Amino acid sequence: RGDGGEVPEIAVIEGDGIGREVVPAAVEVLEAVGDYTFTEGEAGDATLDETGEALPAETYELAASADATLFGAAGESAADVILPLREAVGSFVNIRPARAYPGVDALRPETDVVFLRENTEGVYAGHEDRLTDDVSTLTRVVTKTASRRLGEFACEYVEERGKNGFTVAHKANVMRETDGLFRDTVLATADEAGVDADTVLMDAFATHVCLDPEQFDVVVCPNLAGDVLSDLAAGLVGGLGLLPSANVGSERGLFEPVHGTAPDIAGEGVANPSATILSAAMLVESLGDDDAGARIRSAVEGVLSDGPRTPDLGGEATTREVTDAVLARL
Amino acid sequence: RGDGGEVPEIAVIEGDGIGREVVPAAVEVLEAVGDYTFTEGEAGDATLDETGEALPAETYELAASADATLFGAAGESAADVILPLREAVGSFVNIRPARAYPGVDALRPETDVVFLRENTEGVYAGHEDRLTDDVSTLTRVVTKTASRRLGEFACEYVEERGKNGFTVAHKANVMRETDGLFRDTVLATADEAGVDADTVLMDAFATHVCLDPEQFDVVVCPNLAGDVLSDLAAGLVGGLGLLPSANVGSERGLFEPVHGTAPDIAGEGVANPSATILSAAMLVESLGDDDAGARIRSAVEGVLSDGPRTPDLGGEATTREVTDAVLARL
Ligand SMILES: CC(C)[C@H](C(=O)O)[C@@H](O)C(=O)O
Ligand SMILES: CC(C)[C@H](C(=O)O)[C@@H](O)C(=O)O
Repeated sequence: RGDGGEVPEIAVIEGDGIGREVVPAAVEVLEAVGDYTFTEGEAGDATLDETGEALPAETYELAASADATLFGAAGESAADVILPLREAVGSFVNIRPARAYPGVDALRPETDVVFLRENTEGVYAGHEDRLTDDVSTLTRVVTKTASRRLGEFACEYVEERGKNGFTVAHKANVMRETDGLFRDTVLATADEAGVDADTVLMDAFATHVCLDPEQFDVVVCPNLAGDVLSDLAAGLVGGLGLLPSANVGSERGLFEPVHGTAPDIAGEGVANPSATILSAAMLVESLGDDDAGARIRSAVEGVLSDGPRTPDLGGEATTREVTDAVLARL
Repeated sequence: RGDGGEVPEIAVIEGDGIGREVVPAAVEVLEAVGDYTFTEGEAGDATLDETGEALPAETYELAASADATLFGAAGESAADVILPLREAVGSFVNIRPARAYPGVDALRPETDVVFLRENTEGVYAGHEDRLTDDVSTLTRVVTKTASRRLGEFACEYVEERGKNGFTVAHKANVMRETDGLFRDTVLATADEAGVDADTVLMDAFATHVCLDPEQFDVVVCPNLAGDVLSDLAAGLVGGLGLLPSANVGSERGLFEPVHGTAPDIAGEGVANPSATILSAAMLVESLGDDDAGARIRSAVEGVLSDGPRTPDLGGEATTREVTDAVLARL
């Protein structure tokens, strides 16, 4: 794909809120760097209102068959959209790089952490029950298979990128069987691959990443830990507006900003498209076009550093102006 | 107790590492402000080595019968010590105030958040199973009873302290039954009591408390969320060395610093005793002596602001010197 002559098909799912503004911006960037066909799919709160389903079957099928999917954000129905979509593309890992950018006000500008979040189980595979009026339960699931797959991915990831190793975040002192299995299995893959790995309790990580983010590089986490700890890192680098993510692992990926629909500014044309454009960079890399990925990234970095900037970064520019500035730098 | 003429009995469990240094410091402070009898109990890694049990039955019984317990920290065996001790005193809520102190270097000095952490269930009540070689499970438990009890406590807490209301942190978009029950039950208590309450997703909280901590005041959380989010807040106020906590709810409480054993500095006499002394302030308040609590707090604040300071805060003072400075200000 991508180099075999066939034009890759990209599924485009804007969703709700600022998804409708930042995804079109990223599509313009994709059009500028490569030859792709785009197929639109509907999902989210508006789709739920219209069709009775937040994620219609045809959108699921579209993501399941396209070469890659670009997703924006969904409102109240987010979990009903994004969780099945991650499954539709067969993803088992959510890559969430959190770094600060020159020129962007960040609490901890030295933060540069990549989260490799388990994407299929934990509480997300949860079977919940309301046993009685008083008692509810959720069965959290951790398997050796999923932990090993993630560990092997992490080993390849650090080797390809010339990283020194990774840290496993966990809460195995309380969740002994489940997080114990996760931690030990991931560590075993590192040992087999000759990759350095250490461990940190997820609560201790929350303190230490604030005090000294430079001690962390690649952090391998169970599903919910990865959700919360990457959002924490977002707070350290200046907000969710800059964080891209890639749901990968199988032959097709799903790429999405870490931010949500931002109802407070939706429709005003001032949403920051950077996270989605950076997600598009991860998308083209997944299709084998590392050059295009690097070009997009450097264009976004240039704009973040020199402006124009959207209001979330203290500027007054519109989504349109920022997108044009990125396009001009490609 | 305390005003009935009887001298309150305080169980003192130093534990491991710097627990052996900071707890005696806090006991000196307690001796200086009131009339108490102290009974020592053993627990932790060293106790495990000596007796085969991290928490011997007599230490459990001591905590279960004393008027209040002061605990330091335990090493590898921490979960085997602190979780049963919280149960021994019948605590259902862990109060964790996280605020910055004048003169202490903090990432977000404007942080002033009190976490009310559910202390009996969630994944901590977890029944774990290794179903097959591949599959492990943990059953997370949330009950209406525990959620209501916590909600009622939160309502009283904000009313007594003249706070504007509280925020419920949760992940009910994924854990719909369990965190849904938690959130809805806590909100219902607020509604009945006429207390203002709003909600935030725990991942969103992690971002927003970094970006703008002042929007949060009292945060009511499930057990693990409270663990991680309060540790995050510790990172914003300058580290775990300053955070006290109170396990309360029943007639007796257990008071402990949020920090651990700090093996890197244990035995050197330079541990910061502030968190434990502030925990002792919460202890005397639980015994009805609000005056003594206020005196301790203001002495610690004075020392934090003017020095002497231990190395974790950039100073060169010893635990002894800081303790003497606090005693001198009482
Ligand atoms: C919307 C929600 C289900 C989702 C998650 O928890 O994974 C979101 O928080 C995210 O991180 O993409
Ligand atoms: C040691 C551990 C079991 C404990 C917890 O998770 O509650 C600790 O992290 C804490 O917060 O006091």
